Amino acid sequence: MERLIKKIREEAYVIDNKIVKVDHFINHMLDTDLVFDIGKEFSKKFPNATKILTIEASGIAFAVSTAFHLNHIPIVFARKNASLITNNNVYSSNVFSYTKQIESKVIVSKEFLSKNDKILIIDDFLAMGSALEGLIDIATQAGCEIVGAGVVIEKGFQNGRNKISNKGIEIYSLANIIDIKNNVPIFR
Amino acid sequence: MERLIKKIREEAYVIDNKIVKVDHFINHMLDTDLVFDIGKEFSKKFPNATKILTIEASGIAFAVSTAFHLNHIPIVFARKNASLITNNNVYSSNVFSYTKQIESKVIVSKEFLSKNDKILIIDDFLAMGSALEGLIDIATQAGCEIVGAGVVIEKGFQNGRNKISNKGIEIYSLANIIDIKNNVPIFR
Repeated sequence: MERLIKKIREEAYVIDNKIVKVDHFINHMLDTDLVFDIGKEFSKKFPNATKILTIEASGIAFAVSTAFHLNHIPIVFARKNASLITNNNVYSSNVFSYTKQIESKVIVSKEFLSKNDKILIIDDFLAMGSALEGLIDIATQAGCEIVGAGVVIEKGFQNGRNKISNKGIEIYSLANIIDIKNNVPIFR
Repeated sequence: MERLIKKIREEAYVIDNKIVKVDHFINHMLDTDLVFDIGKEFSKKFPNATKILTIEASGIAFAVSTAFHLNHIPIVFARKNASLITNNNVYSSNVFSYTKQIESKVIVSKEFLSKNDKILIIDDFLAMGSALEGLIDIATQAGCEIVGAGVVIEKGFQNGRNKISNKGIEIYSLANIIDIKNNVPIFR
């Protein structure tokens, strides 16, 4: 997606040839106009989805903008911390965050997923693929059809894509960073 | 907001005359059409906002739909857990979650708020007011003008509104539950 790649080229901060910092438009402050353009891209790629599955917190904005462009289909977001309100009737999976260096259990209430759902998985980043694996695991437990996974930024130099593709899931990333040299991201 | 109140009356689960469970359309699964109607309501009430401030995770969807109806103004969401990517140059405030019975530090990078911003604060719930207080604290540290606070569901039988109003902040809630009797919510 040209607009997104241009934005990353011009505005992202790269740290230690490793971390691409896009806090200021993707995952702390949001460029709302870009968020809706991103949703439009995902909606064009996966027009047959009937429900979106994402993970809190930074996947939610892109799930909302994608659902907007898919006739307002419902969104389910996996939760990272069970609250008092959460009952035990949930699907769960373990997700490791390499950024935070913690493993956490993510859950979705069983009542919100069914085998009739055609699930589009949405997330902000694909790096090692752990978050997507967790969401795929949950959707699979529920017997859903998974129509694909839309990710905003892929770190193609990490191992995520293979893990997901090997499960037979189509990945559509809007910007794929395949290398970082001298703190400059190189796109596929 | 009539549509929201009707939805709560017909579909919310009330537990122990205390917890109003709206997981299935507000904070775990999202009714996307309702989410955008809610955003429209907030946008009409606070047309002069230039930036939205919310808190992860369940405030984000409503921030996105509100920003959509306000000519795509930017959104900042306060983060609950500092990651490796977060630097130390942040505003922070402590927020107590009565649902989860934990206090957590919420942060916003200083670069994302300025004294020129006219901030609209958005959140899903107003109960004891702790999350809103934290967001107001952060916006105040940054010297922002706060145009108001939009909350989807207010639990009017708790103490939140007074705390916020006493700071001179206007609150606009779309459904105000002032009492619960026999597990039936009563609206103002």
